Amino acid sequence: MNHAAIDHYSQLLRMGIEFSATLAFAASGMLAGARKKLDPVGVCVVAFLAAFGGGTLRDLLLDRRPFYWVGNVHVVWLIFALAFGAVLFMRKRHYEPTRRLIQLPDALGLGLFATVGVDAAQAAGMPALICVLMGVITGVFGGVLRDIVCNEIPQAFSDHQPYALLAFLGGWLYLLLERLHAPDWLSLFACICFIAGGRFVAIWRDWRLPGWRT
Amino acid sequence: MNHAAIDHYSQLLRMGIEFSATLAFAASGMLAGARKKLDPVGVCVVAFLAAFGGGTLRDLLLDRRPFYWVGNVHVVWLIFALAFGAVLFMRKRHYEPTRRLIQLPDALGLGLFATVGVDAAQAAGMPALICVLMGVITGVFGGVLRDIVCNEIPQAFSDHQPYALLAFLGGWLYLLLERLHAPDWLSLFACICFIAGGRFVAIWRDWRLPGWRT
Amino acid sequence: MNHAAIDHYSQLLRMGIEFSATLAFAASGMLAGARKKLDPVGVCVVAFLAAFGGGTLRDLLLDRRPFYWVGNVHVVWLIFALAFGAVLFMRKRHYEPTRRLIQLPDALGLGLFATVGVDAAQAAGMPALICVLMGVITGVFGGVLRDIVCNEIPQAFSDHQPYALLAFLGGWLYLLLERLHAPDWLSLFACICFIAGGRFVAIWRDWRLPGWRT
Repeated sequence: MNHAAIDHYSQLLRMGIEFSATLAFAASGMLAGARKKLDPVGVCVVAFLAAFGGGTLRDLLLDRRPFYWVGNVHVVWLIFALAFGAVLFMRKRHYEPTRRLIQLPDALGLGLFATVGVDAAQAAGMPALICVLMGVITGVFGGVLRDIVCNEIPQAFSDHQPYALLAFLGGWLYLLLERLHAPDWLSLFACICFIAGGRFVAIWRDWRLPGWRT
Repeated sequence: MNHAAIDHYSQLLRMGIEFSATLAFAASGMLAGARKKLDPVGVCVVAFLAAFGGGTLRDLLLDRRPFYWVGNVHVVWLIFALAFGAVLFMRKRHYEPTRRLIQLPDALGLGLFATVGVDAAQAAGMPALICVLMGVITGVFGGVLRDIVCNEIPQAFSDHQPYALLAFLGGWLYLLLERLHAPDWLSLFACICFIAGGRFVAIWRDWRLPGWRT
Repeated sequence: MNHAAIDHYSQLLRMGIEFSATLAFAASGMLAGARKKLDPVGVCVVAFLAAFGGGTLRDLLLDRRPFYWVGNVHVVWLIFALAFGAVLFMRKRHYEPTRRLIQLPDALGLGLFATVGVDAAQAAGMPALICVLMGVITGVFGGVLRDIVCNEIPQAFSDHQPYALLAFLGGWLYLLLERLHAPDWLSLFACICFIAGGRFVAIWRDWRLPGWRT
């Protein structure tokens, strides 16, 4: 493959990751809104904020335009359609999502968004620590908005399991692999798998950060 | 009338709408702050956030400067003076605003701000859905800030009556009229009347969005 | 001293004030996080948000880049190190900070940040009232973020003691001294002392803003 082809492929890969991240967080938002029995409009709002909140804050901080949702209007339509469909489906089946279920798309979205965040900040020429923090902000903020709107204490701060910490460590892993001249796709996938996988294991094995003796 | 005169007139009309929207939301902020028995400084803060919050977020997202309150310092003074006067008046009369009363300026402000939001996003060349969403954000965010500072669940999310939905539909009405080459003043007024009027009727007839079976 | 030397000295002074303000608010964040028994990562997050929140919002509103934490990565490391050390220390000693203790660095940070806020807005050529409001926003927002993340009603709105009001009055004092051609260091120090000192006295003597008759 020549260079132009590789660049094109990398670009597609990044777009795919941002899209998957958006869908994953939108799903977590829909489930969280349904759990709180919000009306259909409310579920759309929560899905929208969860899906685009982190990326928008990242772009505001990095002074990047257009935002993902401004440049990809069809994704916004897709998410509204999915949210609407999900509400109809869940109401018909009297289905109530558990807190645990919401954590699955949330973990996936965390890994995907943190990875695009580090990557975008690095492309903007930020210092290493700032890249990692931008990853954490991108990964965490959508979920924080979702929880605030649902009137819950943001999960990122309230459960004593690794969450922001995983995004932080994953960001360093990404930068390390880039420094070692690993191919882009490898750094990206390793970072996603480390964060999302780590979060899955943390939930499954109930890992806890060292707390305070009570 | 020649074109220059029409442009001048349109400009004045838009400034008048933004000014009225600001006053309406400032009034809802003062009433909400007084209801929570905030001190006079707190009432000024709530009035300020409600009046300028939505427009500032819109301008941040659209990357427009100066903000309305930066370019119109006298409006900020006016709102501080009104908030101060309102506190003095209400304390003297032992007057406590009802939740219902707060909804009146809130409905008016929603219609006015959503309309300037759609209009500003369209002037910035955004795609249709983004224009409508910018209108919703502009109309809703001031009230959300007001309610967060007053430590209430934002009304936009908690009551199951149409609110954001009206701003959303009104935005499409505005774009439709523009597409049909209606004169500016007609599109603007139709949008304001649809949203504010719809909200008044929704409160009066107690319209509810379809909820969940309990 | 020649002009270049004075400029250099002024620059150093401003950097020193921003650094001290950051440290003071970081300390208030650590204490608040420890009081809420957050895990070590949570304490780092709260310290980070309290330390950089106000300045970042100011820079977003003034459209200034780079943010303080982007341009001064070592300060971010320092705050993470301090937050981590503080958690270890306080857990070992079973030390629980009182609400009163948190108010000390908070008062200091309020004065320091409000002063840099007014100063930065004036350098950006803003009108007088906007400069003062930027000072208030810079001084208050870090503490508001800290309290929201700790799930408390922001102190700036809930206690009926002068807080935002002091930052507001101090901003006018700064502008007055500048108008009288006082040397920079004098205006800056007078503003800091007025706000932080006023807040200390307000806490000590339990000054209250006039409230509502109950």
